Amino acid sequence: MDFEKLFRDQLTELKEEGNYRIFAEMERRCGAFPKADNYGPDGKREVTVWCSNDYLGMGQHPDVVRAMVETAEACGTGAGGTRNISGTVHQHVELERELADLHGKEAALLFSSGYVSNWAALSTLGSRLPGAVILSDSLNHASMIEGIRHSRAEKVIWKHNDPEDLNRRLAAIPEGRPKIVAFESVYSMDGDIAPIAEICDVADAHGAMTYIDEVHAVGMYGPRGGGVAEELGLMDRITLIEGTLGKAFGTFGGYITGSAALCDFIRSFASGFIFTTALPPAVAAAACTSVKHLKRSQLERARQRRQVALLRRLLDEKGIPHMPNPSHIIPVMIGDPVKCRMISDMLMDDWGIYVQPINYPTVPKGLERLRITPGPLHSDDDIAYLVEALNSLWQRCAIARAVA
Amino acid sequence: MDFEKLFRDQLTELKEEGNYRIFAEMERRCGAFPKADNYGPDGKREVTVWCSNDYLGMGQHPDVVRAMVETAEACGTGAGGTRNISGTVHQHVELERELADLHGKEAALLFSSGYVSNWAALSTLGSRLPGAVILSDSLNHASMIEGIRHSRAEKVIWKHNDPEDLNRRLAAIPEGRPKIVAFESVYSMDGDIAPIAEICDVADAHGAMTYIDEVHAVGMYGPRGGGVAEELGLMDRITLIEGTLGKAFGTFGGYITGSAALCDFIRSFASGFIFTTALPPAVAAAACTSVKHLKRSQLERARQRRQVALLRRLLDEKGIPHMPNPSHIIPVMIGDPVKCRMISDMLMDDWGIYVQPINYPTVPKGLERLRITPGPLHSDDDIAYLVEALNSLWQRCAIARAVA
Repeated sequence: MDFEKLFRDQLTELKEEGNYRIFAEMERRCGAFPKADNYGPDGKREVTVWCSNDYLGMGQHPDVVRAMVETAEACGTGAGGTRNISGTVHQHVELERELADLHGKEAALLFSSGYVSNWAALSTLGSRLPGAVILSDSLNHASMIEGIRHSRAEKVIWKHNDPEDLNRRLAAIPEGRPKIVAFESVYSMDGDIAPIAEICDVADAHGAMTYIDEVHAVGMYGPRGGGVAEELGLMDRITLIEGTLGKAFGTFGGYITGSAALCDFIRSFASGFIFTTALPPAVAAAACTSVKHLKRSQLERARQRRQVALLRRLLDEKGIPHMPNPSHIIPVMIGDPVKCRMISDMLMDDWGIYVQPINYPTVPKGLERLRITPGPLHSDDDIAYLVEALNSLWQRCAIARAVA
Repeated sequence: MDFEKLFRDQLTELKEEGNYRIFAEMERRCGAFPKADNYGPDGKREVTVWCSNDYLGMGQHPDVVRAMVETAEACGTGAGGTRNISGTVHQHVELERELADLHGKEAALLFSSGYVSNWAALSTLGSRLPGAVILSDSLNHASMIEGIRHSRAEKVIWKHNDPEDLNRRLAAIPEGRPKIVAFESVYSMDGDIAPIAEICDVADAHGAMTYIDEVHAVGMYGPRGGGVAEELGLMDRITLIEGTLGKAFGTFGGYITGSAALCDFIRSFASGFIFTTALPPAVAAAACTSVKHLKRSQLERARQRRQVALLRRLLDEKGIPHMPNPSHIIPVMIGDPVKCRMISDMLMDDWGIYVQPINYPTVPKGLERLRITPGPLHSDDDIAYLVEALNSLWQRCAIARAVA
């Protein structure tokens, strides 16, 4: 069996479709973000990053960096075991307490990543609650889809952000079965936001538990950074809130929060939680500092909102089409994988602007885009320069303008 | 639907079996390992850790700590994105180069954890190679089992460490189907080692690819820490070598190595690689330093072997039964979950010795044990004291002695 050929053939196919991914090699510099170095064939070169999920620049916040440094110096670089076998450190316990408090829940549980938290929690709920049905929003993230798939529970897909469709589908399920309504608050690629209250109303009416992924919202929305559910005063209506430490909190790792029994249940039965090395103490300490900071400080959130609004306004002035949504994510639609990659390359090469092309499988084929995430550390000049670059490329490449 | 009751009922069942897990809360102190602080009801107290997977104490090695500290100070605390979307940093690229070199392969690919690397690689191979059959050793780790399960490929379980059984099972599969033989080198809980050469012979005879998990061996075996396959000169006979940075390398994360096409294939198609935030630059830098160090230094490996042999000899002198195996893992069998927890509690409370009880689901019911992992930093006095404690408990608790 020629395995090499099997691998190469599928890679060739991907290349022919224009969906082969080339990673930009970066070097982050503390204090310089959103500027960073890009490694090219001729060495390093400074560029401005416009596609980071370090949404608020917390990954270079002096207090957060100091927490990582001091904890590494005090406690070393690893946890040395799974949570059960010598790997639970004081920093995990503190961080879990902080996260439970952030979401107004009894308990929290850390995972290696947001991906793992979704995968492990949903696969455990779906497989261990006898007869469970998981009702999944049609645009849920890959990690949720894989978790549901792995659980082998019955899965019902409801129309994206449509509580009426959810209602109809819930009504069709026999009353005695445990029902889990799984959805996100901010959808990463379109930047739209779920009608959380309406979804909770429908779930309540059918006795379903609610599972929300707030990875693109924690740290960013709500007076303490508890996410969209906090902003809307709805945290107590959600059974399980899932989040990440790897985006607005600027570090690494994922988590769930919920009742003590729920977290203990996942802790006790989730393979992806049990059989894996715990997060390094220094990562947990940095994350904890970041969560604490964003509970108090409004500065980063306010400044980010200002920069998002400014970029949208300048794009409108130039007629560069961007998908409207109430979030911080600005999708500029291209609709073709090859063109999307080409524009991204020109931005990088000619303008020193880094916006990764978003192609399949991250978005459906035909919906390729640039996904721009302005942060509080992008200056007004950075924004003006980005719009100038896009405008110039729009002229050169004959891409459709928005019609006023 | 009373979800709380559903959760609580299953937890109660676990408690009644004696399999409910209580995590020991630790605080690691750089320079003190294997001593660490344990948080109890009366505050912190120093104990000696005997169950860490930081096998060589690299988690507190000054060079490794310095790499984490300096990189956090230079580059911040997070990667800020997935590998594709702004999250590939120079430190990942360097570490992947180092790991490919460690195993004599063309390429390497980093993952959030060893668990994720197994899960993602096996589920991708099994689902994307049409007609694939995965032949899995009966004692493979949960992460491999879940990866195979997730792939929905046909799975054939072969008798643990038995190449003849593997041969029979391979012979029963039609020639045209891609066959993947998946196994470990050092099995974590029994500490036995696979007959790698014989397994490769059988796999070759049937045109199967070989997939080895060396997570308990990398850094520890082989002249450069490349694992058991390196020690036996067999790395070139393995198609895919999987390892971790969270055990002997003292940091966090997992990886695979193999041909350029194989790694590119997993990179391009594995959901668990694509849709997740990349490792922090500081973690990658620390891991890279650790890998480099253990390529050159024999000190840690030699000293660890000495301490493992010493502990085994003293246990034999006292007739305390431990499972024989050629590795660094010393399983002291108890065979009952409640007794296993009780002995572990007495060791911690009365002797300041921390050995976590290993109960179901980590080992089958009835095979509960203490799993002891002596390292180069355990002193001869530490070892004598541990044996004294075990001997005293064996007298007190009427546990079976080994018959000479």
